[in-house]
Amino acid sequence: MDLSNNTIERLCRIFGHLGAIEKTGVEFVSSAELAGALGATSYTVRKDLSLLGITGFTRKGYEVSSLKKELGSKLRLAGRRKACIVGLGRLGSALLDYEKFQEDGFEIVAGFDRSVNKLERIRTHIEVYPVGSMKDVIKEKGIEMGIITVPGEHAQEVADRLTGCGVRGILNFSPVEVSVPDKVVSVNMDFTNALRFIAAKLGG
Amino acid sequence: MDLSNNTIERLCRIFGHLGAIEKTGVEFVSSAELAGALGATSYTVRKDLSLLGITGFTRKGYEVSSLKKELGSKLRLAGRRKACIVGLGRLGSALLDYEKFQEDGFEIVAGFDRSVNKLERIRTHIEVYPVGSMKDVIKEKGIEMGIITVPGEHAQEVADRLTGCGVRGILNFSPVEVSVPDKVVSVNMDFTNALRFIAAKLGG
Repeated sequence: MDLSNNTIERLCRIFGHLGAIEKTGVEFVSSAELAGALGATSYTVRKDLSLLGITGFTRKGYEVSSLKKELGSKLRLAGRRKACIVGLGRLGSALLDYEKFQEDGFEIVAGFDRSVNKLERIRTHIEVYPVGSMKDVIKEKGIEMGIITVPGEHAQEVADRLTGCGVRGILNFSPVEVSVPDKVVSVNMDFTNALRFIAAKLGG
Repeated sequence: MDLSNNTIERLCRIFGHLGAIEKTGVEFVSSAELAGALGATSYTVRKDLSLLGITGFTRKGYEVSSLKKELGSKLRLAGRRKACIVGLGRLGSALLDYEKFQEDGFEIVAGFDRSVNKLERIRTHIEVYPVGSMKDVIKEKGIEMGIITVPGEHAQEVADRLTGCGVRGILNFSPVEVSVPDKVVSVNMDFTNALRFIAAKLGG
């Protein structure tokens, strides 16, 4: 897609918000309401949607279900995608069973850890494997995305391994940013940095 | 601070990266190396730092410890800040003991949940309380920041409660964005949206 990352990110959030509205049974939503939920302006929302060729804005606003459907299809969010989690410490194992992922079409189909001890003790209904089986499992299950929850010092190594196994999208929760080949999409989510950002904004 | 959010965010990441370099014992770092770790250009790194009045760039690069110290002091990241976590499900309880927070000066000093059952069963060395004691505990312990790990439908209510108790910074992990008063700083970290963004970038 040739949209900017900021636009794609906002459109994805609009898609998520539409899902929440749809559940409540509300049929129409204004660009102002979408903007409010996003912390953006109505103008930005209408512009972002129009960049995807979506203009179905009536006096009542956008029709929630059809906008969600159109957005889902244009952003390729309609299908299901398979993901795995590498690093089954407390965060990784919490994410294994994170229900929101499944609701949104992201199926966690495997967890990996190098500690056999951890693999034996973990309680989850997701299948877990030693890292050595990564290549086979990823291929066999058709896993497209990898979530990294190992300590920072192992993050790059895991990213290399995942992309080497054909994974095309990486969500990295470690505090160390990973670099990936051009064709791979990666997002770094560093919790500690979010707290730092808040602290810096708050000042002394 | 009158810097843009993007600049502050990058400066915070530089601070984090300097901490990692410092641990390895390396004394100097180039703007190119910092840029590489950030996925930015050297020009951006030098410009961001110069916006804070930091220009200590020699032929060898920046001196790691003194740059970290200066950055920490200008971004007000040098002191310790107290935070609490609201919602002790799997994610919240995983974050209670997330060591990186403590290493970085963020002390999680309390956890809250409305389920007494959960409070009784949780295993952590952090003190946990029913939500009803939030006001007293936040005041008594001098908690400045709140981390929200409740389901989306309760996120706004929790954000209101936290800011009502005097919390000035909010890190929200629920999939629903929260709105806060102007003087409060909030960051929304929506995992599912990160996966959506990756999926949209990957395409079909």
